[in-house]
Amino acid sequence: MNLYPPPIQRLIELFSRFPGIGEKSAARFVFYLLKLSGPEIEELTDLIKSLKNKIHVCSLCHNFSESDPCQICLNPKRQKNIICVVAKPQDLTAIEKSGQYQGLYHILGGILEPLNNITPENLNIKSLLERIKNNQNEIKEIILSLNPDIEGETTSLYLHKLLKQNFPNLKITRLARGLPMGADIEYADDTTIANALQGRKEF
Amino acid sequence: MNLYPPPIQRLIELFSRFPGIGEKSAARFVFYLLKLSGPEIEELTDLIKSLKNKIHVCSLCHNFSESDPCQICLNPKRQKNIICVVAKPQDLTAIEKSGQYQGLYHILGGILEPLNNITPENLNIKSLLERIKNNQNEIKEIILSLNPDIEGETTSLYLHKLLKQNFPNLKITRLARGLPMGADIEYADDTTIANALQGRKEF
Repeated sequence: MNLYPPPIQRLIELFSRFPGIGEKSAARFVFYLLKLSGPEIEELTDLIKSLKNKIHVCSLCHNFSESDPCQICLNPKRQKNIICVVAKPQDLTAIEKSGQYQGLYHILGGILEPLNNITPENLNIKSLLERIKNNQNEIKEIILSLNPDIEGETTSLYLHKLLKQNFPNLKITRLARGLPMGADIEYADDTTIANALQGRKEF
Repeated sequence: MNLYPPPIQRLIELFSRFPGIGEKSAARFVFYLLKLSGPEIEELTDLIKSLKNKIHVCSLCHNFSESDPCQICLNPKRQKNIICVVAKPQDLTAIEKSGQYQGLYHILGGILEPLNNITPENLNIKSLLERIKNNQNEIKEIILSLNPDIEGETTSLYLHKLLKQNFPNLKITRLARGLPMGADIEYADDTTIANALQGRKEF
């Protein structure tokens, strides 16, 4: 049985470890790379190599950034009295793209998954408490912006309880639940419809 | 609006060009890379960089290989009288994995797609004709192993006609059509059932 030559085989193995990538997609990546020009390969590998040197973790919000603190934490135009807690940097980007939020962020670096040994100690929760404590007079609201699924809910409940214990006067909110844009009510699940009814607004 | 830092943004752009990868998956790749250790990054980038130097195209069958000719073309145990024509190296690997084929291969490097400007000149067809011509006494059969879809069928028909014109005595076959293993007849499409009936075999 003849498989791929060893360098191709090994690269397929490495690409198979990328999130969401199986062996077939990994093989397609390698054959795609074989078609790239020298300068294209150069740019890709240089960028991957320099990533860790160029990108730092913001010591305030834990977002990836070229500067520390990051551009959002440094920005004097952002509202300093509200912190939006998200699980990962991609969620921050999604919220930024909406253009609706001018406050600060705090990246948890994941959500609670006891079965995968992700406990409160593995998330940026301690630094969130300290951050609020150090700016207690300034920070008025925490938005818990975690996914509306079981793990997200559990993490939100945990954080809500913890924050209320430590800062009883802090306003703690979460993102609204309801029908997403473009949804078909016929196919919406029961919980989404229940949430949409409960959260209904006057025209 | 604050997006990702420029190095992350550029790497997302480059990964988005990978086959089957959109912006969201590309972003997940970058955050996966940010979690890798230095030596892991080193191995990945070194492999990508050395790919073009280590991997050659076999001048006989056009497969990617560390040697030229490739290990299959060089293997004295392979049957030299039969050539299996496939579109891409992954198809060769799939056939090799079956362990049922001992002949040689010829990689077309794609299939005919006139709408995407992929014409016979862009595929390794001329070299196939020359290869057969140079070994006319030896080569007895060509298996056209292209996908059973419209483009694959068109390419097979084109090759069949061309080969018959040039080598009237050459045996030209194609892979059998029928129900794949694990199929549910209830959900099989009409053409597959028709093919399975037409190609039925005695027990």
